[in-house]
Amino acid sequence: MYKLALIGAGRIGRIHATNAHAHSELALAYVVDPVCANADAVCAATGAKRATVDEVFEDSTVDGVVIASSTDTHLDYCLRANGAGKAIFCEKPVDLDLGRAEGAEAQLAGARLLVGFNRRFDPSFQRLKAMLAEGAVGRLESLQITSNDPSPPPVSYVRVSGGLFVDMAIHDFDVSRWLLDEEPGEVFAWGSCLVDPEIGAAGDLDTARTLLRTASGKLCVISNSRRSGFGYDQRIEAFGSAGMTCAKNVTTSTVEVWTEEGVRSDPFSNFFLDRYSVAYQAEMAHFAEVLSGRRQPLVTFSDGVAALRLAVAATRSRETGAPVTIHPA
Amino acid sequence: MYKLALIGAGRIGRIHATNAHAHSELALAYVVDPVCANADAVCAATGAKRATVDEVFEDSTVDGVVIASSTDTHLDYCLRANGAGKAIFCEKPVDLDLGRAEGAEAQLAGARLLVGFNRRFDPSFQRLKAMLAEGAVGRLESLQITSNDPSPPPVSYVRVSGGLFVDMAIHDFDVSRWLLDEEPGEVFAWGSCLVDPEIGAAGDLDTARTLLRTASGKLCVISNSRRSGFGYDQRIEAFGSAGMTCAKNVTTSTVEVWTEEGVRSDPFSNFFLDRYSVAYQAEMAHFAEVLSGRRQPLVTFSDGVAALRLAVAATRSRETGAPVTIHPA
Amino acid sequence: MYKLALIGAGRIGRIHATNAHAHSELALAYVVDPVCANADAVCAATGAKRATVDEVFEDSTVDGVVIASSTDTHLDYCLRANGAGKAIFCEKPVDLDLGRAEGAEAQLAGARLLVGFNRRFDPSFQRLKAMLAEGAVGRLESLQITSNDPSPPPVSYVRVSGGLFVDMAIHDFDVSRWLLDEEPGEVFAWGSCLVDPEIGAAGDLDTARTLLRTASGKLCVISNSRRSGFGYDQRIEAFGSAGMTCAKNVTTSTVEVWTEEGVRSDPFSNFFLDRYSVAYQAEMAHFAEVLSGRRQPLVTFSDGVAALRLAVAATRSRETGAPVTIHPA
Amino acid sequence: MYKLALIGAGRIGRIHATNAHAHSELALAYVVDPVCANADAVCAATGAKRATVDEVFEDSTVDGVVIASSTDTHLDYCLRANGAGKAIFCEKPVDLDLGRAEGAEAQLAGARLLVGFNRRFDPSFQRLKAMLAEGAVGRLESLQITSNDPSPPPVSYVRVSGGLFVDMAIHDFDVSRWLLDEEPGEVFAWGSCLVDPEIGAAGDLDTARTLLRTASGKLCVISNSRRSGFGYDQRIEAFGSAGMTCAKNVTTSTVEVWTEEGVRSDPFSNFFLDRYSVAYQAEMAHFAEVLSGRRQPLVTFSDGVAALRLAVAATRSRETGAPVTIHPA
Repeated sequence: MYKLALIGAGRIGRIHATNAHAHSELALAYVVDPVCANADAVCAATGAKRATVDEVFEDSTVDGVVIASSTDTHLDYCLRANGAGKAIFCEKPVDLDLGRAEGAEAQLAGARLLVGFNRRFDPSFQRLKAMLAEGAVGRLESLQITSNDPSPPPVSYVRVSGGLFVDMAIHDFDVSRWLLDEEPGEVFAWGSCLVDPEIGAAGDLDTARTLLRTASGKLCVISNSRRSGFGYDQRIEAFGSAGMTCAKNVTTSTVEVWTEEGVRSDPFSNFFLDRYSVAYQAEMAHFAEVLSGRRQPLVTFSDGVAALRLAVAATRSRETGAPVTIHPA
Repeated sequence: MYKLALIGAGRIGRIHATNAHAHSELALAYVVDPVCANADAVCAATGAKRATVDEVFEDSTVDGVVIASSTDTHLDYCLRANGAGKAIFCEKPVDLDLGRAEGAEAQLAGARLLVGFNRRFDPSFQRLKAMLAEGAVGRLESLQITSNDPSPPPVSYVRVSGGLFVDMAIHDFDVSRWLLDEEPGEVFAWGSCLVDPEIGAAGDLDTARTLLRTASGKLCVISNSRRSGFGYDQRIEAFGSAGMTCAKNVTTSTVEVWTEEGVRSDPFSNFFLDRYSVAYQAEMAHFAEVLSGRRQPLVTFSDGVAALRLAVAATRSRETGAPVTIHPA
Repeated sequence: MYKLALIGAGRIGRIHATNAHAHSELALAYVVDPVCANADAVCAATGAKRATVDEVFEDSTVDGVVIASSTDTHLDYCLRANGAGKAIFCEKPVDLDLGRAEGAEAQLAGARLLVGFNRRFDPSFQRLKAMLAEGAVGRLESLQITSNDPSPPPVSYVRVSGGLFVDMAIHDFDVSRWLLDEEPGEVFAWGSCLVDPEIGAAGDLDTARTLLRTASGKLCVISNSRRSGFGYDQRIEAFGSAGMTCAKNVTTSTVEVWTEEGVRSDPFSNFFLDRYSVAYQAEMAHFAEVLSGRRQPLVTFSDGVAALRLAVAATRSRETGAPVTIHPA
Repeated sequence: MYKLALIGAGRIGRIHATNAHAHSELALAYVVDPVCANADAVCAATGAKRATVDEVFEDSTVDGVVIASSTDTHLDYCLRANGAGKAIFCEKPVDLDLGRAEGAEAQLAGARLLVGFNRRFDPSFQRLKAMLAEGAVGRLESLQITSNDPSPPPVSYVRVSGGLFVDMAIHDFDVSRWLLDEEPGEVFAWGSCLVDPEIGAAGDLDTARTLLRTASGKLCVISNSRRSGFGYDQRIEAFGSAGMTCAKNVTTSTVEVWTEEGVRSDPFSNFFLDRYSVAYQAEMAHFAEVLSGRRQPLVTFSDGVAALRLAVAATRSRETGAPVTIHPA
């Protein structure tokens, strides 16, 4: 059993706590959260104890930490946890400041550190990746990533989120890198505020299209909206020299109703915790493998930085109206 | 060009007239119908002329006849047309009286006679048949034929129709024989009147389930309702030793609407002339091949008798509550 | 926390143990199994202790028992557990002998006893039931239940299974009663041995079609095969006066591959523990509700007897070749 | 009956000839083609006679002309036909030279002239348009147009085609204008040569992504490839404030095969004449309505120019690497 501490017991932290508790190789020992109610709820459900960050890092029996605190603390906690010799599961994004993140890259290069890009652990997206790997559609030529949230977050959140590209599309930048198997070299983005003028007033977008191009000419389109109107819209099309493979939306049941108005299928999963519940479990199971040394982390700190780099480039392209070339640090 | 005469210019006769007229090898020369308006409409659209049945049979330039008159005339016209050396396209059923039909079987055994079981010419059903033939699902073990009309016919029609099994399910009996590739030896049927009590008052059913069994143990279920509530419901599942192949309903468009209530697809084809429009064209094209001698009829008079035999057996099973063994004449 | 004992730690018992252990209101205290290895494995995973049946029934702190032992012990354990005042979760079938089961019905009528017909807890089947309840397709007229196993069990199992209707189709009889909302009054069944002659040599069938009819004329078809060749085939169509609602098969992912050969979707769930994993969890959660007194059991002992009655009737119909009328005890 | 002349009896001209011949209000009287074999084949099938362009324009009994000759002749024939008072059905594009086309715009503004953008007449695309019009998905925010050919044309054709944007994507530019209901104001395009290096050597692309943006901020992505590997890939997603409506690919049958490898559906239509056969018929039927004065042309010469303008802008954007602003003439 590996002993874990959770830092940050908000919505996503609680998911990780539940999954760690249920995993046969993991034991959640400590919960850190300045909000007592959050921490206590997790403790009651899992038998963990409250602790401070310092206590966690100083306790040599703690094998790993799950960092699900506010984004501005991620980098600091990663560095401290790594210094204390602990394995790290860090929520995305690794930081909002690309320069700071790049500055830590060398230091965290060898860390047992898994960045929480949960989509890489979704069974359907993994299956799609496997189809590409086994050549089911030949040589990959282009990607279409559709990623629309069910409904926009509060404007108060939008204001501190880092903007649509850094906050929301960063998952899609990670997925694009993972599937393209080649680094995007150029980014072009257009955005609009069509869903809610308050979002525009807060300086952000709610609708965007981003183009990525690799050195070999592969093209990727990322389509984002903060509000789909029909649930969590998470689809991928990967187009190759011998066909196309795609992952479709997940529905809440297999039930259909056939009437004179046509065939109505049940809605898509609406909530990200439902849509990706299996992915979150698999992600935690992978962290157990990293802890045990059986596997290297599938998503490294450098992957976190690279996704942030694309998000920052898309933000700049959208501001300048011109394509942006990517220069790895 | 083969010269044709149409006998019976009702709804189905007009379809055959249109398809014959459009076919590059066929010319519609005569239309016979006691109702002047029907005949005249077809003549106006195709350039054919009105004629009597006698004129048609006596005109040695007429190569073939399309018999789409009332069911009680089918057998007589088939015999006369055959006697006159003409190729015959005869609508189903060949007769309502099994004994009479069996009595004519020997005489019409060698005739160039195509019975109008249009479903055998449907592209999807033909494709399903081809899948079976090429062993895509191994050795056939069972069939599920779902065949529901959009809405019931007038009760006045029901009264003279011969009953659900002879009037409606006869198509399904033909399809079952075509796909099973082995003669059903036993029939069991249950029926109910659930759609419209008037149909029950007229002595008929509107809902039925028929089981067929072949000597080798293959099983077939035929599901019928006079009213689907969602269009023309025409589906087949063929289950074999290595999988299943099925033909699904035809939709009116490929459009979907995704909202918070789920995914709504456009309705199924509602009208049999829409659902089977391509099948009716293909059926007439096959008749041209029969006329030219390039092919033997795909559906013979004996096929028409065999389907009627199953329909009669189902009717009796339903009346007696016991399985009925089939005894070919 | 309710204290549970598991009697029978085979494949299905282990599932129930895992789900009970994971449930926040349930604690698995004891495991009973003559096979040490089975019991020990469950104990290691859950912290439960081995015990004998007598110890379980005599321990007044045990709130409920999960009976997953061999079928011939179900009834005896139900009666003893009920006598000991414990809530009961009993695997299906309640017994192989209808007379014995009927004999115990009065005694167990008031018991807090849940029969393990897991399909009633499947999210899609529950959704279909809800569609019927809210009148989405009008008044129910007929059902089509397709229930094919991925592959046949060992012939050694077939021999003691009670036969296809009692062993396999009993789930479908329960589902039919649950959805029809009216007791079937007549049963007719045909069966064949098409999959494996060894099954026939053992006196059983591998392919069957069963018709049910209610007093009001509703019709139900149950289609069974011991081997689908394409995974666990579990589908329902419920046809009503205003349309149809259906539950389709569950796929292992949402991935499709589009090539010149067409569109290939990922396979269906192949293993019943995968297909119904959520149903098994929901079933155990319902047992917790029964234990707490918040809800009455959704599936009573009488439901178990009624499904067995239909299975026995189908077996007799198949043997006699005639419909069988159902006479409730 | 309206008397028509066909100018250009190549592949697409023959389609128009067949559809005109089959239409009850249209009669094909003349065929013009320098290649005798082409013209003669059409004459044999339809009863039309060969003629020269001058004869057609001078014959006052000719009501309309169908211009399906080489692109460089379109504009000249349109002007001459209009001068001669004839209704015009002109294949796309109206010209390869935007300046020339714009120069003729005023002169042809009032003409009874229908440009052959067949996709506007596809039943599914029309249904999608109707869904937008009736507000089924709220206010339109973005479009995704996927338009991939089954396989690339010969390089000899590519060389004189005007390039991917003018030759192939021009259909998509027309569809985007039709559905957006607002003129795109900016265009950005990236392209690659991934399918066939010969196409690149000929100075063209085979893979492209084009972004369009309207003044109100609506976004449209057009995805093109010269080779899909899985048939004619023609899909549209229209995303609105209350959901999404989409038109999916057309399959060659409704047949599926279910095996342990999953579900295989039949391939998509592979050939544009199959995929759009109904659209071509509907387009000709619309031309009959234009001839009769019952309706104004749904696609005007100005629509043809506007689509060309977007294609030219996309070509320039791709060459310069920067967005291009659209300036209507």
